Amino acid sequence: VGELQLIEAIRDVLDAPGERVVRWTGDDAAVVRARPFAVTSIDTVAEGVHFDLSTHSPADVGHKALASALSDLAAMAAEAGEAYVSLALPESLATGDALQIVSGMATLAKLTGTTIAGGDVVRAATLVVTVSVTGWADSQDQLVGRDGATAGQALGVTGELGASGAGLMLLRRAVPSVDRSVTEALTGRHRRPEPRLAAGRALAHAGATAMIDLSDGIATDGRHLARESNVRLEIDIDALPLAPGVAEVAAAADRDAAELALTAGEDYELLFTIPPERWDAAASASDVPLTRLGSTLDGEGLHFTGGDAPDLDLLRGYEHL
Amino acid sequence: VGELQLIEAIRDVLDAPGERVVRWTGDDAAVVRARPFAVTSIDTVAEGVHFDLSTHSPADVGHKALASALSDLAAMAAEAGEAYVSLALPESLATGDALQIVSGMATLAKLTGTTIAGGDVVRAATLVVTVSVTGWADSQDQLVGRDGATAGQALGVTGELGASGAGLMLLRRAVPSVDRSVTEALTGRHRRPEPRLAAGRALAHAGATAMIDLSDGIATDGRHLARESNVRLEIDIDALPLAPGVAEVAAAADRDAAELALTAGEDYELLFTIPPERWDAAASASDVPLTRLGSTLDGEGLHFTGGDAPDLDLLRGYEHL
Repeated sequence: VGELQLIEAIRDVLDAPGERVVRWTGDDAAVVRARPFAVTSIDTVAEGVHFDLSTHSPADVGHKALASALSDLAAMAAEAGEAYVSLALPESLATGDALQIVSGMATLAKLTGTTIAGGDVVRAATLVVTVSVTGWADSQDQLVGRDGATAGQALGVTGELGASGAGLMLLRRAVPSVDRSVTEALTGRHRRPEPRLAAGRALAHAGATAMIDLSDGIATDGRHLARESNVRLEIDIDALPLAPGVAEVAAAADRDAAELALTAGEDYELLFTIPPERWDAAASASDVPLTRLGSTLDGEGLHFTGGDAPDLDLLRGYEHL
Repeated sequence: VGELQLIEAIRDVLDAPGERVVRWTGDDAAVVRARPFAVTSIDTVAEGVHFDLSTHSPADVGHKALASALSDLAAMAAEAGEAYVSLALPESLATGDALQIVSGMATLAKLTGTTIAGGDVVRAATLVVTVSVTGWADSQDQLVGRDGATAGQALGVTGELGASGAGLMLLRRAVPSVDRSVTEALTGRHRRPEPRLAAGRALAHAGATAMIDLSDGIATDGRHLARESNVRLEIDIDALPLAPGVAEVAAAADRDAAELALTAGEDYELLFTIPPERWDAAASASDVPLTRLGSTLDGEGLHFTGGDAPDLDLLRGYEHL
């Protein structure tokens, strides 16, 4: 199958764009009616690094590539707009699998109101999927960066932690099997993470001062937020909202559950700061539960309290390439 | 070198953005003040397919990746805005080489008024560079698609053809060496193509009705334009503006020079249609010479006249993956 046939087949998989998109496939570039502020992030997933086709279906790969890019828009509190997709495909990948990548992406695009408006398809020695997403905002005030936290604010997180990391261990059969429904839930969280777009906008509207998505885990991403805001994050280990089954999987692997939740990454939950008096408004506006992890203090970096506070030096090295 | 150190080193290579860019590196996404229409294209180059590190320096690779994306904006007559860059880097690639990729890109960005506003750096088994570029326009009328040509218009092309294809043959030592200055000119055109941003806007302003950039060559890209506009393109083989040395290289390789110019691609010149009475205005507004290749007719596809008209069936198969 040549490039042109594949592109035509891809076009058939995609929904026709709404009226915001003036030109899409079939031209040199897509043309979109803009709103005052464009919010853009580009994210890449590569075979053997971010996924394996032994543990991820092609549709999972498409979902994951788009989800990780949209998660950045969620962390800015932008409204999802368009996605531009590059598929670098090895010759060994069947055409049907390439279309399944696009289908997985298209399903998530539909759920999140995102239009896949353009793309590129090339050959490469290994499967690499890159997604550039653009979201929109009518004013800068609607957006939240990493740099707005000040001392004396509440530190919170959306949803549950550790599910993706535990799910990956189960997918790799790195731990003895656990209860089947727990396995399905955890591996599902790893294969199909949900970008917290609605929660991000609700948090911003409620008054969140700084936000970041947990792609690498709090041990890494929390440090980014602390550095950009120039504050210290105090985190109560006992408050971490571990997903059901994470403790069990961690125990089976002889690992500390909190350390797994703080470092394994790819949960794509949002870590945020907010004035404490705005907490209740945020909790009732968010479509996912919020958990208060601690507070912001003068200083820098992360400080853990409660539980078996993990060794910060051990956590310091975690950086995903 | 970890991801964070590399990203910091990359930030040092980049120029600080202008006031159009509200947030850039250091946040989850870049935030840019928009103009009414966003024009976006994503392009990928992969090692072993679009370049080889034996023939391209890392800076060439960066230049080429950005140039091919910007060329799409040129073909739409958009003004260059921002670029978002994904680097998928094999472990074997030295950090200095990764920075050289960014440097090559940054040099072209500066020349073209493009801001590198965000990116992603990941590991992968092979080197893959993806660039998503966004350009801007204040109205749709300023932009030119592939679909606006009607019968009875002039067909033209910017600059020279065949240089990139001949340059690649010289880089691969697939032909006996030719004159040294010719070799340098042709290989330079292959390694560092120039996106025709100014010419594209001048042509649009002068009244061009359809435009496409020659990434794959007229045999392929001309057919795209003909199909989208629902016209037939009549092309005079004798009028093709072959770059100096192309005939010599083609002869040394025992290939037809016109066939090389029509099929080798990567010249990144613009093929356009325009009402004949607007030709002189276009020619005086363009910063590169224009050559009239022929006319648009009722019908479909390509029709060659003059010279040794190449076998269309032979050309039909050319599709770059």
